Amino acid sequence: MENYKHFLVLLIFAFAIGFVSVVLVLRWVLHFREGLGWDGGPAEFNWHPLLVVIGFIFLQGIAIVVYRLPWTWKCSKLMMKLIHAGLNMLAFVLAAVSLVAVFDFHNAQNIPNMYSLHSWVGLAAIILYSLQVVLGVSVYLLPVSPVYLRAALMPIHVYSGLFIFGCVIATALMGITEKLLFALKDPKYKDSPPEAMFVNILGVLIAVFGGLILWIATRPSWRRPSEEHLRRAQSSEPQLTGTKPAAALSERPDLEASNDARRRGAKTEESGGAV
Amino acid sequence: MENYKHFLVLLIFAFAIGFVSVVLVLRWVLHFREGLGWDGGPAEFNWHPLLVVIGFIFLQGIAIVVYRLPWTWKCSKLMMKLIHAGLNMLAFVLAAVSLVAVFDFHNAQNIPNMYSLHSWVGLAAIILYSLQVVLGVSVYLLPVSPVYLRAALMPIHVYSGLFIFGCVIATALMGITEKLLFALKDPKYKDSPPEAMFVNILGVLIAVFGGLILWIATRPSWRRPSEEHLRRAQSSEPQLTGTKPAAALSERPDLEASNDARRRGAKTEESGGAV
Repeated sequence: MENYKHFLVLLIFAFAIGFVSVVLVLRWVLHFREGLGWDGGPAEFNWHPLLVVIGFIFLQGIAIVVYRLPWTWKCSKLMMKLIHAGLNMLAFVLAAVSLVAVFDFHNAQNIPNMYSLHSWVGLAAIILYSLQVVLGVSVYLLPVSPVYLRAALMPIHVYSGLFIFGCVIATALMGITEKLLFALKDPKYKDSPPEAMFVNILGVLIAVFGGLILWIATRPSWRRPSEEHLRRAQSSEPQLTGTKPAAALSERPDLEASNDARRRGAKTEESGGAV
Repeated sequence: MENYKHFLVLLIFAFAIGFVSVVLVLRWVLHFREGLGWDGGPAEFNWHPLLVVIGFIFLQGIAIVVYRLPWTWKCSKLMMKLIHAGLNMLAFVLAAVSLVAVFDFHNAQNIPNMYSLHSWVGLAAIILYSLQVVLGVSVYLLPVSPVYLRAALMPIHVYSGLFIFGCVIATALMGITEKLLFALKDPKYKDSPPEAMFVNILGVLIAVFGGLILWIATRPSWRRPSEEHLRRAQSSEPQLTGTKPAAALSERPDLEASNDARRRGAKTEESGGAV
């Protein structure tokens, strides 16, 4: 892998920021808010931000970059697909439960559902995400779709994954804005009490996490090399005295993957390709 | 250009959605709100959403994809750089005036500044945007920086441009959320009056515009071909009987650009590269 140290520093930084975001949202609901419960009250609502940050943001972020971790390049492609799909499905389940929590809370408190831009963009994101998971599993995990279809849909699969991730982050920032305006009464949001500063910082960290994940996911030189390239590197390993497999893998895997796709008689133009 | 019709349809669709967003925000401030003025009142605030949508979203979106318009590929690179920089500078000026309007309004109404997540992310976006413009002009427009520096910074220039654009859109969606919660009193936002639905639709259109611009800007096959490729295509034009220049330009300009950069002794890995 090119610039391995650079990759590692950014990855650790991204995961640390994602992890801190989860800790902050947990502290928000437990320390500043009403804790967690399932009683139709504010404690039930609190599952909404908590599960969104854990699942829809942190886990989805990990799922997006999981193919790029160079220590997984010795794992089979099928294993990596299962991990990618599994993380996304877990994220989807957590996001779905977080939605149930907020609808349940609204219904119990006689608050209308689906009136805000936050709810519109959020619902669109979860519907698109469910389509993404179903199509992803159908096309790339089940052994039924032809190679040309997999290659043709890959740019759309990658782009829509990143676009949904961006929409989820924008929705989370809208949700934070809404919640602080609703919940802070005396002092108000505009009076900048400690909770407002604390949750603003959480919002900034979520945006930075998104930016780091999108950077890592769109560097062509950090792609998982093609299967053929990996096989060739592994088979030539004993002959290449003094040459580490990592060095053999570092020769522009993006171009290699592109050649590989052309050999398969299909075009794949996506630089952030994952499957 | 590969898939020219596909490009054209998406481009027209993106520009139409951007244009409709400008019309909707104008109708919002003129029909649903207090109109436009510069008196420290709500009419002054209204310049804020209007100028952000016109400048920071619509013009910035056009600036991002301007290199990809195939009918500009016969223009010199310097001309295109001037157009790209000029559009971004105009967008920056409008964004700066929109900030003055909202600070002026807040100060006149004794509303604190810079307490919300919207203001934090928005201010970060405008500071990053000013750095982006200054660095972009210094490195790519002024004839002082060496070629290796231009190539090395290009992935960062492209990514930070797209990231700032995404942050601006997220900030606009937070701003819409805030404004509708503040301004709608009887009926409230949660009662879904016509203004709430109207502005929610504006928010959705802004997100779709962002998604389309980012798709167009990140397709490697829609990049402006390298200067060498363009020169070769133009010089071979008289000999290539029956071959249109556009066809000659369609042979994977992304790979060509990559080879071109390697010949210059530098690496450029960015698929969405613009300069």
